[in-house]
Amino acid sequence: MPQGLTSKGAATRDRIIEGAAVLMRQSGAGVSLDEIREATRTSKSQLFHYFPQGREQLLLAVARHEADQILADQQPHLDDLTSWRSWHAWRNTVVARYRRQGRHCPLSVLLGQLAPDDEGARTVTVDLLERWQAKLAAGVRHMQDHDLMTRGIDAERAAEALLVSVEGGALILISTGSVSPLETSLDLTLDQLRVRP
Amino acid sequence: MPQGLTSKGAATRDRIIEGAAVLMRQSGAGVSLDEIREATRTSKSQLFHYFPQGREQLLLAVARHEADQILADQQPHLDDLTSWRSWHAWRNTVVARYRRQGRHCPLSVLLGQLAPDDEGARTVTVDLLERWQAKLAAGVRHMQDHDLMTRGIDAERAAEALLVSVEGGALILISTGSVSPLETSLDLTLDQLRVRP
Repeated sequence: MPQGLTSKGAATRDRIIEGAAVLMRQSGAGVSLDEIREATRTSKSQLFHYFPQGREQLLLAVARHEADQILADQQPHLDDLTSWRSWHAWRNTVVARYRRQGRHCPLSVLLGQLAPDDEGARTVTVDLLERWQAKLAAGVRHMQDHDLMTRGIDAERAAEALLVSVEGGALILISTGSVSPLETSLDLTLDQLRVRP
Repeated sequence: MPQGLTSKGAATRDRIIEGAAVLMRQSGAGVSLDEIREATRTSKSQLFHYFPQGREQLLLAVARHEADQILADQQPHLDDLTSWRSWHAWRNTVVARYRRQGRHCPLSVLLGQLAPDDEGARTVTVDLLERWQAKLAAGVRHMQDHDLMTRGIDAERAAEALLVSVEGGALILISTGSVSPLETSLDLTLDQLRVRP
């Protein structure tokens, strides 16, 4: 949340971002500021108040919202990867999420609207990947500490590999419509983390 | 190669596509037809002759060229995955290729210029992924037949997982600039294919 907003102001800003996110999921990220104003019942001066730098600033805020949503969609499992049951629930939640989403990733659509070298867009992605990997690594570390996953693979490396499975699987799903590579890659990576007798 | 072109015609068409690919790698996929004409010393009527449907048709041809290039960059190893030495050479070639390419993937830049639901753009990607996976699966199958890789993992699944490693690793590299997830994921997947004593 940006500094200097009252809680009422922050709520209004959130309402605009959420409304814009819904609209962009339906109609693509090419929607105009006027369409967003109409859908969120916001005046021009209100929109300018919360997003003085205009459309790009609003797009970035919506992208951050969608990035948060990607992590939220994996809860409560992502924050509680403390048993194999929980890891499997997380795996199924991820697969179901991307299967539902299919060929349209709202975050990549949004980021595609910004300049390829846009520093803000890059920060949204990097920040998302770092938070995601940290949560996965914490889960692997917990499992290793309780002898439930092999200690033969460093927790950060394991988290990296799991993140690659999800990102690569989702990317191929967007192109081909098939969820199979995502499932295969996640399952093989998780299998590799099992403790061998 | 489209049908009905003489070999001289096909050579001219290839020259335009290659010139456009070089220009787009330098200046982005937003370059105009006039800029492409100038860079490839092509007249308006020539360009229209080879690409009667205009800019989109040329973009697709360049995308196909870049897709072929992705496979060509992995040769000679990709067509000869018959020993661990060759698999390691392939792994190093892939990592070096994406490290060199860094944050700019010419194919995704090109495909990003076409409509998200463009059937032609989708076909280029699906066709690339299918050819790629078939070559990896052939390599795994050969290794399994010679007891050099475990038979415990189906060759098609292994190929799927390897493709996810490359795609996911490349996607994260584009966002973060780090080649480490690509290396980690490839190494762990290859390690999983080893024959355990």
